[in-house]
Amino acid sequence: MTERRGGGAALVAHSGGPTAVINASLLGLVEETVKRRFFRHLYGARFGLEGILKREFVDLLDLDPARLSRVAQAPSSALGTSRLELGPGGAERLVEAFRTREIRCLFHTGGNGSMGMAAEIAAGARAAGYDLQVIGIPKTIDNDLAETDHTPGYGSAARFFACAAREIGGDNRALPGQVEFVEVLGRHAGWIVASTALARHRPGDAPHLIYLPEQPLPLDRLLADVERVFARLGRCVVAVCEGQLDDRGEAFGADARGGSRGTLAMNLGHRLARLVTERLGIKARAEKPGLLGRVNGPLRSAVDWREARLCGRAAARAAARGISGAMVTLLRQPGPAYHVTTGLAPLERIAGVERCVPPEWLHPEGNDVSPELLEYAAPLVGEIAGYESLE
Amino acid sequence: MTERRGGGAALVAHSGGPTAVINASLLGLVEETVKRRFFRHLYGARFGLEGILKREFVDLLDLDPARLSRVAQAPSSALGTSRLELGPGGAERLVEAFRTREIRCLFHTGGNGSMGMAAEIAAGARAAGYDLQVIGIPKTIDNDLAETDHTPGYGSAARFFACAAREIGGDNRALPGQVEFVEVLGRHAGWIVASTALARHRPGDAPHLIYLPEQPLPLDRLLADVERVFARLGRCVVAVCEGQLDDRGEAFGADARGGSRGTLAMNLGHRLARLVTERLGIKARAEKPGLLGRVNGPLRSAVDWREARLCGRAAARAAARGISGAMVTLLRQPGPAYHVTTGLAPLERIAGVERCVPPEWLHPEGNDVSPELLEYAAPLVGEIAGYESLE
Repeated sequence: MTERRGGGAALVAHSGGPTAVINASLLGLVEETVKRRFFRHLYGARFGLEGILKREFVDLLDLDPARLSRVAQAPSSALGTSRLELGPGGAERLVEAFRTREIRCLFHTGGNGSMGMAAEIAAGARAAGYDLQVIGIPKTIDNDLAETDHTPGYGSAARFFACAAREIGGDNRALPGQVEFVEVLGRHAGWIVASTALARHRPGDAPHLIYLPEQPLPLDRLLADVERVFARLGRCVVAVCEGQLDDRGEAFGADARGGSRGTLAMNLGHRLARLVTERLGIKARAEKPGLLGRVNGPLRSAVDWREARLCGRAAARAAARGISGAMVTLLRQPGPAYHVTTGLAPLERIAGVERCVPPEWLHPEGNDVSPELLEYAAPLVGEIAGYESLE
Repeated sequence: MTERRGGGAALVAHSGGPTAVINASLLGLVEETVKRRFFRHLYGARFGLEGILKREFVDLLDLDPARLSRVAQAPSSALGTSRLELGPGGAERLVEAFRTREIRCLFHTGGNGSMGMAAEIAAGARAAGYDLQVIGIPKTIDNDLAETDHTPGYGSAARFFACAAREIGGDNRALPGQVEFVEVLGRHAGWIVASTALARHRPGDAPHLIYLPEQPLPLDRLLADVERVFARLGRCVVAVCEGQLDDRGEAFGADARGGSRGTLAMNLGHRLARLVTERLGIKARAEKPGLLGRVNGPLRSAVDWREARLCGRAAARAAARGISGAMVTLLRQPGPAYHVTTGLAPLERIAGVERCVPPEWLHPEGNDVSPELLEYAAPLVGEIAGYESLE
């Protein structure tokens, strides 16, 4: 984290998967940049790094404010995003592109991989003797960034899946006699699947079992848990993460796809439902809302949207203060009411670090979460109202 | 359809899968029954026919009206529902249960299978010399009942999946380079999958391909369609029904489960995504919101909810008029503005009949729907607003 005065033009790029609130961060960044008049231009790269390499930019300061407000209400990235890896010589090519437009500040919006990339780009600029500020704007549904209390995008994804667990729980209660797996987004960190516990209001409410990918899940334990719940209630809803592994480090025999961050099962819920039917003789099925959970407009969290905007604003302020090599963070303030402020943390402390759910926030039996986790997540997700029943 | 004057007690039962608005029909039935004072009791069977056989009833006229209003806002069946088949001697056992509580009217809420069951129960009562009115309340997300313009439950499920197609389309647009299958509920009738076309607002909007289960889909044609769209846009969203079959009458090699209405694939979208990746070398994945789509509270259609309530009211009015052996229908009235009234049709004309999408409402190329279908569905689903973009 260093300080310098910028001026010239700035550029914002999106990196990694979109979220329901990434455009709110864009709004915050643009409105604060307009207010501070620190940069002559604020370009938006079309499709992240790919747009920088192809010089495909939108001048965001030219945008009609009413249109920008509408863009900020839309889920998914309005600029477009990319999973392009930097690769050898990548930082140098980007710096070349910056030079052609006199871009002196990069706002990189993404998760821990993207923050690593931002640090590499900053190093590349230094090596090339090119004066460049680099500021990270946090964005990931996975909520796995270090140095920040939570990340924009998480609250909305968590809200979607908590609502999904509530609805599927209602279905399973009305038409019992089967086991329902709800497959939730998330690879190594179980923050989203954990939040499905917010769906519970009455005794017997779903989800009855919640597994976090922080712990391997032996198939026998899963089956014993399901059998016990089903014997008691005659129904069972299981929230499980697409990244859940068994005690052999495998995805229970599901179809998996390799990637830079390890393999990920493509049909885990379905596979587990089949195993339950085959081994326990209980009717079982699985739902997989999948990507719908990361870009759902109607179910986004209002707090998440506001905080995403805050992060965009804080990034513009940091730029005006000459900050470089840092990511905006959210700091939860002590006190009875939920309140956050923004801070800054060096990119190096975030790059490549995955912040998982701490072991003490898991239930000792490995099939649920602790009250502390719910206290942490509830204000980020917003209220998940229960439904009236006739019981 | 016969006429008689009832009196005594009445009973309402839910049958088949729950919907987002089945409790609105319950509200309509209770409020009109209270108003007409035609029955001394209105019992609700817990878990459909199972509750009748076990004599598990809720007295709905005792309910606090404020609580009933809240129940009507909840998706999924508040009474509980059942897939129990009548079986040999089933009607007789039900009539015995009616006799013990002097139940003189059955309101059976369900789809075409349930209306067949209602007709059998009516016949069983006649054979036993037991005076019983039987009135059907339409309920199915599949929209496949004869004699009615559409069915309560359909508009909300269609709204859910149209929104899902919009959101997943936005994700696929922001992060292109892959094919996305959106697996939609529906077995033989493609009404829901057809409604995903309402997600489109701008050129290039998803879904790019929509397949209706009314037509078999040769795998080669699917692959050619996907390849063509992907070559043009660099992305592709396909809406496909879980009941879609290939030209050999099989589910493309997906895992399937047998049932009274034929086999149903459990992982069709995933299977098709794998085939696209293997045969075309294009990255592909699938989302399957599944049952979430039939019981989603936040995304229900306001028109659907109002009409479900109307159907409940109309059922109570029909009972007071002495009608028996009929189901309430929705009749779309001619004129520039959308308007429906309720009617009645004999159970025999609905029982076991599946009303599919007419061939002229399919696109000639077999991968989309016609404008007539959208005109039909739009008022039932409600507006699916488009999102602002930066393009």
